[in-house]
Amino acid sequence: MKDLHDLAQRSRLSFYQISVSAVDTRNAALLRLAELLEQEKAAVFSANQKDLENAKNEQLAPPLLHRLAFGEEKLAQVVCGLQALAAMEDPLGQTLMATEITQGLNLYKVTSPIGVIGVIFESRPDALIQISSLCIKSGNSVLLKGGREALGTNQILTELVRRALSESSLPADSAQLLETREDVAEMLKEDTLIDLIIPRGSNSFVRYIMDHSRIPVLGHSDGICHVYIDRDADPETALRVAVDSKVQNVSVCNAMETLLIHDEIAPLILPRLYSLLTSKKVTIRGDASVCRIIPCEPASEEDWSTEYLDYILSVRIVPSLHEAIDHINRFGSHHTDCIVTTNEQNASVFMKQVDSAGVYWNVSTRFADGFVYGLGAEVGIATGKLHARGPMGLEGLTTYKYKLIGSGQTMEDMKKGLRVYTHRKLNENCPL
Amino acid sequence: MKDLHDLAQRSRLSFYQISVSAVDTRNAALLRLAELLEQEKAAVFSANQKDLENAKNEQLAPPLLHRLAFGEEKLAQVVCGLQALAAMEDPLGQTLMATEITQGLNLYKVTSPIGVIGVIFESRPDALIQISSLCIKSGNSVLLKGGREALGTNQILTELVRRALSESSLPADSAQLLETREDVAEMLKEDTLIDLIIPRGSNSFVRYIMDHSRIPVLGHSDGICHVYIDRDADPETALRVAVDSKVQNVSVCNAMETLLIHDEIAPLILPRLYSLLTSKKVTIRGDASVCRIIPCEPASEEDWSTEYLDYILSVRIVPSLHEAIDHINRFGSHHTDCIVTTNEQNASVFMKQVDSAGVYWNVSTRFADGFVYGLGAEVGIATGKLHARGPMGLEGLTTYKYKLIGSGQTMEDMKKGLRVYTHRKLNENCPL
Repeated sequence: MKDLHDLAQRSRLSFYQISVSAVDTRNAALLRLAELLEQEKAAVFSANQKDLENAKNEQLAPPLLHRLAFGEEKLAQVVCGLQALAAMEDPLGQTLMATEITQGLNLYKVTSPIGVIGVIFESRPDALIQISSLCIKSGNSVLLKGGREALGTNQILTELVRRALSESSLPADSAQLLETREDVAEMLKEDTLIDLIIPRGSNSFVRYIMDHSRIPVLGHSDGICHVYIDRDADPETALRVAVDSKVQNVSVCNAMETLLIHDEIAPLILPRLYSLLTSKKVTIRGDASVCRIIPCEPASEEDWSTEYLDYILSVRIVPSLHEAIDHINRFGSHHTDCIVTTNEQNASVFMKQVDSAGVYWNVSTRFADGFVYGLGAEVGIATGKLHARGPMGLEGLTTYKYKLIGSGQTMEDMKKGLRVYTHRKLNENCPL
Repeated sequence: MKDLHDLAQRSRLSFYQISVSAVDTRNAALLRLAELLEQEKAAVFSANQKDLENAKNEQLAPPLLHRLAFGEEKLAQVVCGLQALAAMEDPLGQTLMATEITQGLNLYKVTSPIGVIGVIFESRPDALIQISSLCIKSGNSVLLKGGREALGTNQILTELVRRALSESSLPADSAQLLETREDVAEMLKEDTLIDLIIPRGSNSFVRYIMDHSRIPVLGHSDGICHVYIDRDADPETALRVAVDSKVQNVSVCNAMETLLIHDEIAPLILPRLYSLLTSKKVTIRGDASVCRIIPCEPASEEDWSTEYLDYILSVRIVPSLHEAIDHINRFGSHHTDCIVTTNEQNASVFMKQVDSAGVYWNVSTRFADGFVYGLGAEVGIATGKLHARGPMGLEGLTTYKYKLIGSGQTMEDMKKGLRVYTHRKLNENCPL
């Protein structure tokens, strides 16, 4: 077990250095990391082979083995991602607002890094590079905890990240690896040194983290995504969107878990949907009305709040748009939900009232992703509503400061009326 | 004790209504509230008189009685605030970003309300109007818990807020009053219905709330604000800023609690500062070096992390800018800190490295306030770094949604390369 207090303290001191570094320096570290990954790839692949062998001996399921593998293809993707990130604009020092408060006193709202961020992620080693590179670009320090199965790969990748940092005159301790569950438990206690925890995992895992720490948590938890087929839906669009949302990749958080359909269009759509989905080996669990139209298993109340991540779909017939919205707000996970309709008014109501990070009109829920949205990459998809919502990229890793620049102004002069508030918007960037 | 679950549920249902209301409707409710306050002022004043009499009988301290009083002057301020708020731009439905993802598929990042917000505030009844009006304007539902002493005044004010809502076709349950500590304890359990808690109070109170709820908390806690007088400070500016920061109003969170001064300029500044501050009845607690220059009480380690809210100032001599920054980041509360210097480079380093919501150059810390910043009003000053930081106005009461508008696009087509990502920035607002 590591001395987490010492490690967090070094992380915090490193934050004060990386937070004020020039963007060219941070970009140089990203490009150096890309070079080091190419240069040291034999060692990385060999460490990954050992992790894979251990995982096979422990009889890990094939999808998990697939996620754990880090070969030429993943390496090329990761290197490409680093180059793209280095080319992106500096997320720090951006002036969001500038106001003259009174003569000679200017207020600037300026983006700045958050501080020390702990990220707990699953067994994909490429996630380690994505997360640490986003943190470097945004001037934060990061504490990384990956899946147990990937430990050997993660150790060598972390070493490369740290080399890239120190060879670019940045503190290596801006990126540190945690290795055990005990490390995580210790990390959760360091609320004076760590500013944010990002846990990626199940709902219950995110809740566990929240219940065991005073550190703010941005959770990436369940995705119970819905497609609602409105009375006024175009049938072809409805079928395309529903099939893609369900089967394009069943094991991801933005796949559809529940289909809602208006009762007047259900007899037209459901039989065709049934044959399309069963040909893809999807099992349907329907409410009583659905079971009268197509052969299916009866859905229980529990189905409406279940994330299957599998070839299973729950289906419910609703009497109105309003009931569809109620169902989603009640049973959904506020991730991504779609309406299929040709009625703009209904689309507008749905998109305003559904309380989710992504509200879609006539498009597959599978589009909920940081790369797809053009954010570069993501550290996670936030299902809460504060700070960052939905795919969380560089912007979600920044906060802001108010910088106030004066020449000895006092509140006493303001109260006496010797000076007046002008509150004039300025069209300029913060000079410091 | 109220049935908090039922109350929170009604608050949530009301949220779904107020969240989709037109800005004209929300503004009408604010203006109607201003009218009702004028119209029913005799009843409000009489309820406040009773609260004041009870408070006097319970021997409340004079500053608390002053905060509790709600008379003609406070009424005029509150009415003026409501009119100004009604005139402000709609914080909802603003398009923050628009991107074409692929042909015919447009993504919009659009501001939206947060949901149900619980606010726990001190004994000022005018705070009830400020908080509920900010929540109405931003389309949120609010659960209000004010100071025990102000209960009678808060009850009648809440009734007026609810009348203004229902007379403007908005749900009265968007604003509800909690009356007891037991109500608060019950509210903290409703994490599936309530989206955010804003506790205003001491550090220990905010911690108590955080430790007893899974609901996200935006804390307004201690203000341990610093002024650092740099070696290159202009002496007159240093004295003006230091005196105003300390004595303009000692009992507020943006008053200075600790002065740091560079050792080379200390012999020049401290004697003059000593006579200015002692003439205002300020007691100085200094470190050993300070005590060699001016008469003062010796400061203990505890002084550096104490919010006095009183005519007391701790003073420390530091050998460098770097040590000043370290002291502030270690002992401060990340609220507001100022450097006095003529050296732009030092100002820049200070403003980048000091990890606080407000970083000031040559201006009194007393300027840290939502009205002063031009935000209209504030629900609190956030001392955390996530979501909102510093004075928190309308913008802090909003989040955003991603609205994606397509025509049947599927991820399968993207993966097959039948369509390509364009990621073209659009210069348009979301049509829905």
